Amino acid sequence: MADNKKMVNAITAMDEDFAQWYTDVVKKAELADYSCVRGCMVVRPYGCALWENIRDELDARFKELGHENVMMPMFIPESLLQKEKDHVEGFAPEVAWVTHGGLDELQERLCVRPTSETLFCDHYAHIIHSYRDLPKLYNQWCSVVRWEKTTRPFLRTMEFFWQEGHTMHETAEEALAETEQMLNVYADFCEQKLAIPVIKGRKTDKEKFAGAEATYTIEAMMHDGKALQSGTSHFFGDGFSRAFNVQYTGRDNTLQYPFETSWGMSTRIIGAIIMTHGDDNGLVMPPAVAPTQVVVVPVAQHKEGVLDKAAEVTARLKKVARVKMDDSDNSPGWKFAEYEMKGVPLRLELGPRDIENNQCVVVRRDNREKTIVSLDELETKIPELLQAVHDGLYQKALARRESMTYTVKTFDEMKDTADNKPGLIRAMWCGDLACELKLKDEAGVSSRCMPFEQEAVGETCVCCGKPAHKMVYWGKAY
Amino acid sequence: MADNKKMVNAITAMDEDFAQWYTDVVKKAELADYSCVRGCMVVRPYGCALWENIRDELDARFKELGHENVMMPMFIPESLLQKEKDHVEGFAPEVAWVTHGGLDELQERLCVRPTSETLFCDHYAHIIHSYRDLPKLYNQWCSVVRWEKTTRPFLRTMEFFWQEGHTMHETAEEALAETEQMLNVYADFCEQKLAIPVIKGRKTDKEKFAGAEATYTIEAMMHDGKALQSGTSHFFGDGFSRAFNVQYTGRDNTLQYPFETSWGMSTRIIGAIIMTHGDDNGLVMPPAVAPTQVVVVPVAQHKEGVLDKAAEVTARLKKVARVKMDDSDNSPGWKFAEYEMKGVPLRLELGPRDIENNQCVVVRRDNREKTIVSLDELETKIPELLQAVHDGLYQKALARRESMTYTVKTFDEMKDTADNKPGLIRAMWCGDLACELKLKDEAGVSSRCMPFEQEAVGETCVCCGKPAHKMVYWGKAY
Repeated sequence: MADNKKMVNAITAMDEDFAQWYTDVVKKAELADYSCVRGCMVVRPYGCALWENIRDELDARFKELGHENVMMPMFIPESLLQKEKDHVEGFAPEVAWVTHGGLDELQERLCVRPTSETLFCDHYAHIIHSYRDLPKLYNQWCSVVRWEKTTRPFLRTMEFFWQEGHTMHETAEEALAETEQMLNVYADFCEQKLAIPVIKGRKTDKEKFAGAEATYTIEAMMHDGKALQSGTSHFFGDGFSRAFNVQYTGRDNTLQYPFETSWGMSTRIIGAIIMTHGDDNGLVMPPAVAPTQVVVVPVAQHKEGVLDKAAEVTARLKKVARVKMDDSDNSPGWKFAEYEMKGVPLRLELGPRDIENNQCVVVRRDNREKTIVSLDELETKIPELLQAVHDGLYQKALARRESMTYTVKTFDEMKDTADNKPGLIRAMWCGDLACELKLKDEAGVSSRCMPFEQEAVGETCVCCGKPAHKMVYWGKAY
Repeated sequence: MADNKKMVNAITAMDEDFAQWYTDVVKKAELADYSCVRGCMVVRPYGCALWENIRDELDARFKELGHENVMMPMFIPESLLQKEKDHVEGFAPEVAWVTHGGLDELQERLCVRPTSETLFCDHYAHIIHSYRDLPKLYNQWCSVVRWEKTTRPFLRTMEFFWQEGHTMHETAEEALAETEQMLNVYADFCEQKLAIPVIKGRKTDKEKFAGAEATYTIEAMMHDGKALQSGTSHFFGDGFSRAFNVQYTGRDNTLQYPFETSWGMSTRIIGAIIMTHGDDNGLVMPPAVAPTQVVVVPVAQHKEGVLDKAAEVTARLKKVARVKMDDSDNSPGWKFAEYEMKGVPLRLELGPRDIENNQCVVVRRDNREKTIVSLDELETKIPELLQAVHDGLYQKALARRESMTYTVKTFDEMKDTADNKPGLIRAMWCGDLACELKLKDEAGVSSRCMPFEQEAVGETCVCCGKPAHKMVYWGKAY
């Protein structure tokens, strides 16, 4: 217990200072570390293993839907970035510029990609000629750079890791269907694999992606009531095709511009995992992507037969879960605290008494519930318990979101709720930018999304009082 | 046949213009395309799928040996790059410099990593404190940038994709063992998975990596007799540890500098695959990493039952191989040429007559050998035939290398062989840089490696005639 306390004391309590709690968890759970480059992080082995699991899960879903991976250059020539007006306006102020190669000054500056619509369009202009070449369903896994002023590991870093899908379609309908489909993939992934409930919706024009006609988003609520945009999917119409002269011969033998989408999920989602499930003991990993799903801790491991049995149990479990045994010299108390900090979903304790009784003790990370499991039933019980942890995490997060979601009808109510109650706020909006800006400036909330599942929670705009038909989620956001 | 000819005519013959043949294969097999950024390529879906198979195979081997993946920043501050003298001298002339972030000029320039020893050392200085923290066995998959003057897809590109392992050890012996172990991993991977025979050896001081004490290499021979350095592994001693102040408390309670290694394999290896196995009909993929191992081509597919049977065969084969069916409207002749171009190891033809006889025809890409296979034996015969293609490719490449490897004893012989016989040349060397430079300048050959398997092919240096104890492979190289 002394050991345990020592570890736990090393993290700031959530209620005391949520931002510090977050940083403590990132560092002590060894997900990431600061680097010598401002705003760039080192993703450590535990964080990298988590990202690889996320990548593999998403990548399999993308491929199953017919998407193919490519690898584009990391640089964009300045002239290429400037081809689409809205896009360059959105991104030029926050890119890193390469001006020299070796000892020579470049004739044209290159920016390090902040996103790759321009590069994909340039490539598509070379390879799309006929309707037979459509759809093109490409994706890439890479890192991108945005010159951010304030940064925090995973949540906002100058360089971050992500996937970016870029697709081209014959018709606007097909492209819109793709935009929706990929948002659904993200939402399903978050709920089924990360145990994070999300709200699906559309961004207002103010909040949409630079150059997009429509941006869809999934929004999740963090422990402190703030929203985190967890994945986005954009419909571009044929704007980029026109700007980049991507044309194909259609079924009617005339030249056409294809319709484009893009969609991305990034290492930000690791921030969402931390701030949705974590607690004062550290991280809590959703089982489906946890680098280690079960840690086997031998108790009284010096006693004859304990280590052998623990190794046997570990070997058996390897067939059904990602499992590791810790037979180091550290005390069981130290180990308990360590794997709680790292958020390993299940801890399996095995001592001489357990072995005598042909059983083990399994402790859930999410609620500390202990279950006695017969060693004969390991292969069925452990996956069941992992599923139970997943369900528990999801339900807890959903209940928290519901209890921290408010509905308001007037500006005063909005301001009062925003000032005093962390969480999401549902309110009607007339659709005017002026109201959106006033809510931001005077109530401190931004529009998170216009949810696909609309519900008329009033008849007039929360800001100006005019008739309103859109229900919007408002809140503070990461 | 007309179709077939048309496709084949699209590639320049190897004997006519090997460089053009290479470019044709890269483009027509759709491995990569040029991009709008000088010296940077677009790796297309087929090339990317190949690279992902290479990555997955290598990554599994690394992890089995205890290595863990991390993700480091893509930038290196100028002051960090300068910490190790030899290293900065080697790399500074060929890096891309970021000088502006958004609209602001940076106080310190950042280079885009050409390799990451400096970043790893900086991180290791933070996380290595005690001998208990050693060894550290890290790897990362990423792209790096080197400002090359002349570039060719895969072989030499400004940005290229690779993995770079960086490890720290308590003793020089352990680090040397790691350096050797990882070279063996590369050699084994090349021979067992890529069917590329390699020569393992050590680079001369002139050819070693900037900042390394020793560089080990695997060298492969391409179709045109030129050598291609296919993977390297470096031993740094404690030079970088001292430069970056990485220190740990040893078992004897004194402060020590750990010993470092690094090792890398890049997308260059795709160039090696093309130039080792390819022929005048296009690419030949080694089965173990081929994105598609078997293509099922229905013959007379409009006839009743053909497509159904082909789909059934495809579904069955999916359990033992990466298989795809092409039931497009293109003619069988067009399809045959297309998949030959793409180097798919096995083509499975299935027509009404075959179905009647409960059989199919399987054609090997490497030697066009046809085998009649009973449909009852598919699941055993196809893996056997894939192995046969692998073995055939390896043996053919090995025989070519042997037939194009020469042994010379005098400078005149060396010059004559280098001028007239493409291939590798074995000759003794005294160890003097002056002789190495003279051979380069006057005979046009560089030292490829001092092979681990030494054989005294003479007693005197091929250049100066003084006593010599090192047998060296010399040649022209990519």
